[in-house]
Amino acid sequence: MGLEGVRALLFDVFGTVVDWRGGITREAAPFLRRHQVKADPADFADAWRRRYSPAMEEVRRGRRPFTRLDVLHRENLVAILPEFGIDPADIPPSELDALTLAWHRLDPWPDSAAGLQRLKTRYIIAPLSNGNIILMLDIAKRGGLPWDAILGAEVVQAYKPTPEAYLRTADILAMRPEELCLVAAHNDDLAAARKCGLKTAFMPRPTEHGPEQKTDLTAAQDWDIVTTDMGALAQHIGL
Amino acid sequence: MGLEGVRALLFDVFGTVVDWRGGITREAAPFLRRHQVKADPADFADAWRRRYSPAMEEVRRGRRPFTRLDVLHRENLVAILPEFGIDPADIPPSELDALTLAWHRLDPWPDSAAGLQRLKTRYIIAPLSNGNIILMLDIAKRGGLPWDAILGAEVVQAYKPTPEAYLRTADILAMRPEELCLVAAHNDDLAAARKCGLKTAFMPRPTEHGPEQKTDLTAAQDWDIVTTDMGALAQHIGL
Repeated sequence: MGLEGVRALLFDVFGTVVDWRGGITREAAPFLRRHQVKADPADFADAWRRRYSPAMEEVRRGRRPFTRLDVLHRENLVAILPEFGIDPADIPPSELDALTLAWHRLDPWPDSAAGLQRLKTRYIIAPLSNGNIILMLDIAKRGGLPWDAILGAEVVQAYKPTPEAYLRTADILAMRPEELCLVAAHNDDLAAARKCGLKTAFMPRPTEHGPEQKTDLTAAQDWDIVTTDMGALAQHIGL
Repeated sequence: MGLEGVRALLFDVFGTVVDWRGGITREAAPFLRRHQVKADPADFADAWRRRYSPAMEEVRRGRRPFTRLDVLHRENLVAILPEFGIDPADIPPSELDALTLAWHRLDPWPDSAAGLQRLKTRYIIAPLSNGNIILMLDIAKRGGLPWDAILGAEVVQAYKPTPEAYLRTADILAMRPEELCLVAAHNDDLAAARKCGLKTAFMPRPTEHGPEQKTDLTAAQDWDIVTTDMGALAQHIGL
């Protein structure tokens, strides 16, 4: 098993390519200090991320037109502030705008940039993330991620794991689904991609959710590739 | 005058970044030979390109839903074959598909890749072309064009020079129009961009249409920058 016939590698980003929890924790810390909140900033990161999928679900179910993730992140930030004893009305909108951009300043895992550079020599590489274009672009520019294009939810106007997110991406690339491989740290994302006919590579990130992580530590199916990081993936396929 | 406040440089591609006429001439030559057509392959390239804007006009006027350029190029190829004495029904569809991909194999002008690499150190750089995503991506991968993202008509579902092509691109980048600068070899593209509030850089390509070119040799307005090639543009802005 491997990547025979694959022409493009598509990557989940939050958790798979970048460390969202570490980045949001780092950015939330001065915000919480400034507002005299004693909570652990990692809890703030977790609370913010907890509203991520429910917010997209409104779009996935057609109850809301497609809305880019930056907007959902901003709304979710307002929603969690009371959980930390902050009245959103007390915070200037410009400060909430600035904190929302914390998601644009996430750091790649240490292996990501160098591994992607190797993978790029043979494959088209692009994010297939629910993050919007400028969010992905800012992360890439800051972290040196050498994407060939920015694909994902905003381009296809559909959030993973709806089938349209994967199938419309294949259509845009003028490829059959089996010519694409999704690389992700999340079994559910890979399962949805496989149902659409994509190849799958599982790259667990056992500290994505912190030291106590219980989910996505092992492969839930016989994915086409199971690997440990970007460098190992490049080595696995002979690069 | 210059690029004060600009954060992203967006590029017209056909003619500005790549030599479409040289590339199509090169790819058409063996096709015409194979079918015993004695015409100049450069005339074939010109004929194919002549149908480019009229085909998009059907989309621009709303008479046809957005249709990616690869599809229009394929239709336009069938349309011009009789002009060269070829009955489209005599050519296998797979051969027409392959020739349509000639547009994916256009070479950059000699200054493009190195100049873009310099510009990328300070600005977000992306195509804002009527070419579709995989067309732009294949050209970039082959020619070493280091785009930060592939933007353009397919992403915003609108063909230049309609205002939506420029304004929706600014919206996706979460920037005001004046934070974007369009770099183009065509005065009409720049005029449309300026009407939308973008900054403008004119980079004439005096042999885009061959040695007898009469159009777009000089600036039709006082564009924010007038330059000669990508290296000169980088130098002009101190890179």
